Parts: sequence; C-alpha cells; structure tokens
Amino acid sequence: MHSLNVDLGERSYPILIGSGLLKQSMYFAEHIRGRQVLVVTNETIAPLFLETLLSSLSSFDKVDSVQLPDGEAFKTLDTLNRIFDALLEKRHDRSTTIVALGGGVVGDMSGFAAACYQRGVDFVQVPTTLLSQVDSSVGGKTGVNHPLGKNMIGAFYQPQLVLIDIDTLATLPDRELSAGIAEVIKYGMICDAPFFAWLEENMDALLARNPEALSYAVQRSCTDKAAVVAEDERESGRRAILNFGHTFGHAIEAVQGYGKWLHGEAVAAGMVMAARLSHLRGWISAGDVDRLCSLLSRANLPQQSPSDMTVDDYLQAMAVDKKVQNGKLRLVLLEALGNAQISDDTPKDQLVEALRACGAK
Amino acid sequence: MHSLNVDLGERSYPILIGSGLLKQSMYFAEHIRGRQVLVVTNETIAPLFLETLLSSLSSFDKVDSVQLPDGEAFKTLDTLNRIFDALLEKRHDRSTTIVALGGGVVGDMSGFAAACYQRGVDFVQVPTTLLSQVDSSVGGKTGVNHPLGKNMIGAFYQPQLVLIDIDTLATLPDRELSAGIAEVIKYGMICDAPFFAWLEENMDALLARNPEALSYAVQRSCTDKAAVVAEDERESGRRAILNFGHTFGHAIEAVQGYGKWLHGEAVAAGMVMAARLSHLRGWISAGDVDRLCSLLSRANLPQQSPSDMTVDDYLQAMAVDKKVQNGKLRLVLLEALGNAQISDDTPKDQLVEALRACGAK
Repeated sequence: MHSLNVDLGERSYPILIGSGLLKQSMYFAEHIRGRQVLVVTNETIAPLFLETLLSSLSSFDKVDSVQLPDGEAFKTLDTLNRIFDALLEKRHDRSTTIVALGGGVVGDMSGFAAACYQRGVDFVQVPTTLLSQVDSSVGGKTGVNHPLGKNMIGAFYQPQLVLIDIDTLATLPDRELSAGIAEVIKYGMICDAPFFAWLEENMDALLARNPEALSYAVQRSCTDKAAVVAEDERESGRRAILNFGHTFGHAIEAVQGYGKWLHGEAVAAGMVMAARLSHLRGWISAGDVDRLCSLLSRANLPQQSPSDMTVDDYLQAMAVDKKVQNGKLRLVLLEALGNAQISDDTPKDQLVEALRACGAK
Repeated sequence: MHSLNVDLGERSYPILIGSGLLKQSMYFAEHIRGRQVLVVTNETIAPLFLETLLSSLSSFDKVDSVQLPDGEAFKTLDTLNRIFDALLEKRHDRSTTIVALGGGVVGDMSGFAAACYQRGVDFVQVPTTLLSQVDSSVGGKTGVNHPLGKNMIGAFYQPQLVLIDIDTLATLPDRELSAGIAEVIKYGMICDAPFFAWLEENMDALLARNPEALSYAVQRSCTDKAAVVAEDERESGRRAILNFGHTFGHAIEAVQGYGKWLHGEAVAAGMVMAARLSHLRGWISAGDVDRLCSLLSRANLPQQSPSDMTVDDYLQAMAVDKKVQNGKLRLVLLEALGNAQISDDTPKDQLVEALRACGAK
C-alpha cells in the first residue's frame, strides 16, 4: 500500500493507493470521525463493489446507501437533490460522513453534497475509475453541470480520505480506461516530461492492465496533481495548468451534449488543439505535437475534433467557459513538453488555425 | 454613517449602517472588485428599491438583475437555479459580484448562489428588512430549505460588504418589523442584558420607527452577533447560542409549512419555550420569563405555540434539526437573562412540560 499526503494545511488529507483496500475496514475506521455513513454510488458500480464496501463499514451505527443513475447527463442539481433526500429521509445529522463510491460524476456530486449538507459534513472518496483516481479525487473540486455550462455550480471541498483500490480497474470498460489515460498523459505534458517518457515506454502495460504499471501511473499522477494543488488550492493562478486541453474539451462536451464523448476523450482532442496552438505560437516543436498524437493514438484516444463541429461552435462555447477572465480568453499552452503556462493573449487567428488543423469546420 | 467590522481574518468585511446609503455609488465602487454585477431581488422589493440601486451601480460594465418570487416557500434549489440561469444566460464570469437586495430569503439564496457559482464569486448584501439587517446579513450562513428541513442545504460564505440603509425600513409592513424585533430581543436575552433593558425602555420608539432608535438597535444587534461569529465562524461551539429559540421555531415553521408563520414569529414563540425550559431546569427566574413575554407582547409577537401543534409534532421535527449531534438533542438555554448556554442533557419530561406550558397539545 502506497500513501501520499495532499498538503493543504488544516485541510490536508491522505491518498491511499493499493490492491484490495476496499476490503479493509481499518482504513475507514481510522479516518471516519462520526458514527453515521451514507454511501453514494450509481447503478453500474453498486452491483460490483457496494456489498464489499458496506461490509467494511459494518462497524458504524448507521450505514445507508443511495444509488444515482449513471452518467455525466445526470450530474445535475436534480440528481444532487436525491442525495439530500436520502440524508434527510434517513435522518443523518451533521456528524455524518458521505462516502463516494464510483467515478468522477459520483465523486463530484457526493463532494458537493457533503459541502452543502447542513453547510458541510465529512467526505471520503473511493474512486473506481482510472479517470477519477488520477484526477477528480485529488484537489477538492466538486459540483454539478448546468445546461449552459459544465461544472458551473460547485464548491472547493476537501475529503478526509481518498482510498484508491487498484483492483476496481479490472472491471473498467476499455473505453473508460483509455479516457482515464488521457488525464495521465496530461500530467506528463504539463509538468512531468520524464513521466511522459515513462508512458511512451509503458503504454502497452497500462492497456494490458498490468497492476504494477497501473499503480505506478496512479501514484505518479496523484503526486503531480497534489503538488500543483498544494501550491494553489483555489485556482487563483498556477493551478489552472491542470485545465490543459479542458477549455477545448469542455466545448466539445457542451456542444455534443454531455455524455456522448467521455470527458477524457474530449480532453484528449482538446490537448491536441492546445498543443497545435502552442506550436503555432512558436513554443513546442511539431515533433512534440506528433509525440502527443502518437501516444494518444496508441491509447485509442481521439486526436481530432468531432467532425460536425465548427470553429464558431468552439468560440461560442469557450466564451462562457470558466477560464474567461474579465472578457479575455485564458488558455493553458505548452512552452515545452513538460512545462505548461497560462496565456491571456492568444491571437484569434492562430486559435482558429489550430482548430481547423484539428478538423473543426 | 456607522461602520463596524466583522473580524474573520482574511474573510473580514465591513457593515455600513446609515440613512440614504443605497443612493451612494461610492460604497459599491469601493468594495466591488470586478466589473460585472448581478442584482438578485424579489418581486416585492424590486419596485421599491431596484431602480435606486441600479443607478448607484451604473459605473460598472455589466449590470443585470433577476427577480425571484417573494417568500420563504420559494427558498428552494429550484429558485436558486434561476440565479444560475441568469448568470449563465447573461454570461457572467468568475469576476462577477452578486448583490442581494431584499430580506433574508433573498440574502440566503444569493449568498449560496455566490458560494456555488463557478465555485465561488464575490457577494454584497443589501438587506432591506429588519430581520435580515440584524441577523442573516451577519455571519455568512447561506442556503436553501428542503421539504424535510429548513436550511438543510447551504454554505458558510462571507460577503465583501454589508450595506444597511435604514430608510428601507420605512416601507416594511408592521408584521415584518415585529418579526425582526424578535431577533433583536434575542441578542438581549443571550448575551446583552443591558441591551434587553434598553429595549424595554425603547420598544415604543422602535415600533414608531424612530430612525435613531432603529439605527441603534441594528448597530447593537450586528455588534453582538459579529462578536459571537468572530469567536466561532463555523459553529463548532459557542456560535450555536445564536440559535436560541430556533430549534423550537424551526419545528413550528416546518410543521405549519414554511411561510405561514414568519421566521421571527416562530422564533419569538420558540424563545418563550426555551425560556420556560430554562426556568424548569432551575436557571432563570419566572420573573425573567415574564419580562420576555411582556416585551414580546408589546412588540406584537406570539408567546405561544400554534394551537394545532402537538408535543409529538415538536419532538419529531426537532429530531432532524441540525442541532442534533450524534443522536443527542442540543438546546440553547439561559443560565441567566443575558447569558445563554448550550445544553446536551435536557430531561425529556421537562422538555414536554415546557412545550405544554406554551400551549402545545
């Protein structure tokens, strides 16, 4: 078992990574302060892991669970309300702990519910997808979507514990494994060139679900993300580099309708757009863009815009993206492979050229 | 103009209290950091003050407003979503400031919307009722109700500024003025016996809306509340004394249906219940209970339970109240007039006796 600490002062918390952790009641007993627990999961994950988790929680006084419908399309205020319904119907008080069992959607909604229920209760993340293990479980971003924008309603809220059981990846569909790998590749691109090289060496092992390779990729990704988050918890500056590829990716998700492209797939195409734009600005080389595309291709991830999206679709969707500050478009670009920078002064013609080079009409 | 500071470290903010402040654009210019503003108000308040406020905000680049339906019955996630709709339709970004113009419902929902929109934007309170001026505008509690419990969904979130224009009280209906006075009386009861005596002297002036008397009562109430909040921002301990009368009051509101009794009316009856219970426990004297009842009576506030409520109604409603910790009923009682204490060990038979003494069946 590997343990790492997300260093946020009084809001610091541990991430435990290993095999078979879900079965170990001691980790829950150690980190959950109250005697009440609500497990939030979804209809896909529940048959796989809920029973195991509930049995690890059996020493608590009150253990309830609620199952949400599966998918980004249900990451809404309405679905969030089902968590509040469960908490109130089962009479959970302020001392309760919400345990999120599932992927990013379950984690983001559970965390936001924990932030809001009675103005804040404890929270534990048990992410079961690669994407949520390497991304959404670290850093405290929680929330839901709005029809006019992704993650527009939410809170910064830190868990008491993140418990990552690598065994949960055994049942993950191939497409979702790849979507998670997109975010793993991102860490290499934005801040960890040696990790990018490691991924080029070990992509086959990851896709074959080699436990050592997966475990290392998760640890390294969480370590990279935790370092960025510790420096800038509330995204007033540097943390925004974690959004590399995401401004474009959110545009794809918003225009296609949430859930049609997986988040990681949209981010993969978005990273290529951001990389091409970085190259047009004279920063990274064409060879670096090719290395990214090649690695994404091996991971079965898209490198192009959806064929039905126009340049205008992107420009419009990006104008309401959170990365817009006082009317200026803020993008994360690469000065070099392994070194992202936040840029406020992208010329519009280069932006359009990069979008077209990625297949936008 | 009187200014006082709510001392919460980096989340400190000023409360400005005076006559004609709404017309003074300088206060807004000084405390609003961005160039975008969304005013949130309701259909009752908008015809009275919205135009004046908008003209004080005319120097900002983007000024929009949204009008919510009036009343506690609309303090819901659904109504909250109308604020998000407005922000996104009008393309407000992270640099926007939400200005709440109205009473406690508008303030609580606007503050919660500010806490959640893009994970947190700036917030200014312009409370226009006595209740919101002396209570909800100080201390950062924001949120909405759930059908199963009041204020069950929310956040602690501090504004950048609270601006209290005493002139707004001129149009306040008598019943709402009285409801506000209930919370003013509360400060005297829980922590400020000299202020209670001042209220006994000056109740007629308050009811006649004497500006000096109102201004003094607002200042003193805000000062008392700010001192309690500064000591315990997130209600881990002492701050709970501000809930004096509220556990009973929330039961009344929940059982009667939100909005039938005004919050201050329910708190008034709840304070008498808590005071009677304090007397039964051997703490305050029967004379102190009489002083409270007499002052409430002069302020045209109830001193009895709604006649259709039973003891069981109270016990059931109170079991889901936020003041329950790990299954124990936590109540705020009075050791003396002007000195509240939090008590975890109320005997149930005394609780029932106090409820019956206040007319519960």
